[in-house]
Amino acid sequence: MKKTTIVLFSGDYDKAMAAYIIANGAAAYDHEVTIFHTFWGLNALRKEENVLTKKGFLEKMFGSLMPRSVKKMGLSKMNFAGMGPKMIKHVMKKHNALPPEQLIQMAQEQGVKLVACTMTMDLLGLQKEELLEGIEYGGVAAYLADAENGNVNLFI
Amino acid sequence: MKKTTIVLFSGDYDKAMAAYIIANGAAAYDHEVTIFHTFWGLNALRKEENVLTKKGFLEKMFGSLMPRSVKKMGLSKMNFAGMGPKMIKHVMKKHNALPPEQLIQMAQEQGVKLVACTMTMDLLGLQKEELLEGIEYGGVAAYLADAENGNVNLFI
Amino acid sequence: MKKTTIVLFSGDYDKAMAAYIIANGAAAYDHEVTIFHTFWGLNALRKEENVLTKKGFLEKMFGSLMPRSVKKMGLSKMNFAGMGPKMIKHVMKKHNALPPEQLIQMAQEQGVKLVACTMTMDLLGLQKEELLEGIEYGGVAAYLADAENGNVNLFI
Repeated sequence: MKKTTIVLFSGDYDKAMAAYIIANGAAAYDHEVTIFHTFWGLNALRKEENVLTKKGFLEKMFGSLMPRSVKKMGLSKMNFAGMGPKMIKHVMKKHNALPPEQLIQMAQEQGVKLVACTMTMDLLGLQKEELLEGIEYGGVAAYLADAENGNVNLFI
Repeated sequence: MKKTTIVLFSGDYDKAMAAYIIANGAAAYDHEVTIFHTFWGLNALRKEENVLTKKGFLEKMFGSLMPRSVKKMGLSKMNFAGMGPKMIKHVMKKHNALPPEQLIQMAQEQGVKLVACTMTMDLLGLQKEELLEGIEYGGVAAYLADAENGNVNLFI
Repeated sequence: MKKTTIVLFSGDYDKAMAAYIIANGAAAYDHEVTIFHTFWGLNALRKEENVLTKKGFLEKMFGSLMPRSVKKMGLSKMNFAGMGPKMIKHVMKKHNALPPEQLIQMAQEQGVKLVACTMTMDLLGLQKEELLEGIEYGGVAAYLADAENGNVNLFI
């Protein structure tokens, strides 16, 4: 079986979109697909609503400064203080392109393995209750075990 | 035959340069090479001159805000409001390093397959007449078909 | 033997950290690992102290504007004019995560091959005396020779 793995490191709306489009494409072509969400990419797996948790000061600060869910992310280019994402969302709607939050759901339905990097969760103080249901948890060892047999391994 | 594929997502002068240098290197070592230009990376394939086309308002806006050709791109780091690219171009000339617009031409001469992502063209309203001659058009399926047999698959 | 290669193009603290974490993980799983440092990523190999060298004006300027060592780099996101790296370093200390300068040392001890891109050294005017001991020097050909037999090839 062909294998595709993606490290989603970036916390940008457009890069997350690219990651999920490639993942869904690969799953449609019967690849076994893993997306390993690390650093800012982990924010794509956050629930939209604010989940109350006990946290230290810095962890609270990170939590509130970082976007909750992919919907709230900015663009890697032409962000224009938030105007860019609005423009992109507008043209996406016009062209019937799926927004990333729906691409994530489609990925889960297609059996794409969504992994949250536990080291990043520790560092940024993100807790399981704040993340989407149905995802897995792992570290760099889990990623490498998937990637070393992968045909397509990308870092986004 | 060895295969190299690059997704060029970034619209930065330096990252585009890295992509074309790796692509030309791989072609020189007899790899079959594909560069799949998506999102901001698609701008590397735009013609320098303004091509008159019929477009909607947002598409016109995207078209005029985004750089026409790699020459007009900024740096991912140390851009200094346009000073960075000038400095880089100066040292490149001094060291006889080929600028990216010539690297693209060399890539075409070496048989590197330059693909424009049709989904991005749709979204950003870019039309075939605005892009370089001699390129191909495709979506994520075409990319994956190349990448799944690739030895080196990069996302830049 | 499994092989992992990483092109470290970025000059961001967080991205360099990700690169060295993956490299050390792969080395621990007995992969043969190469990190090819190019463009801004080359700064990760610079010595912290200022090394006196004879240079032209532009090369001096690049040398002083770019960070000496990974310690001095900013974050790709949430840099907040230097506050972000301080916050990250603080939580890393709290969670006993190794800082990147120690990850580089660990990588060298594990036999990870650290390569400095000679073309970038030429362009930016960086000289061997300014870079860490025990590293190797090479161009795109050396990178491709490693990558074309790699199982995991990433561009960071």
